[in-house]
Amino acid sequence: MDDAQQELVKQRFGARVRQLRMARNLSQEELALESGLDRSYLGKIERGESNVALINIHRIAEALEVEAGELFS
Amino acid sequence: MDDAQQELVKQRFGARVRQLRMARNLSQEELALESGLDRSYLGKIERGESNVALINIHRIAEALEVEAGELFS
Repeated sequence: MDDAQQELVKQRFGARVRQLRMARNLSQEELALESGLDRSYLGKIERGESNVALINIHRIAEALEVEAGELFS
Repeated sequence: MDDAQQELVKQRFGARVRQLRMARNLSQEELALESGLDRSYLGKIERGESNVALINIHRIAEALEVEAGELFS
């Protein structure tokens, strides 16, 4: 997986988090609070700047009330 | 998410990787080679000892020829 593909993986994930957050009418602040993540870190994730790991992926999924797998669809 | 839940998240993911690897009749060695991950690191993942991040999740999914989301089902 080359650098461009890695960037795409992070960007797609971030865009999906943002899409689901907006679909639930949550602000970044609210999702941060709900998931226990820092708001600025959540911003980085949504901008595709973070190589998010399993535990935080599940924290976000729980806060969005979706299965973790749905963050990859 | 408490410590026990975090362990469970990592263990479930690892068990799913192992299940899919075996279903494809791949050895850890072969999946490691295919995914570009170190064999001992792949062993840690399968034992639920690693908080695997997005890029490696996608490397594993590609090597197993599944969508990343299937690793969470």
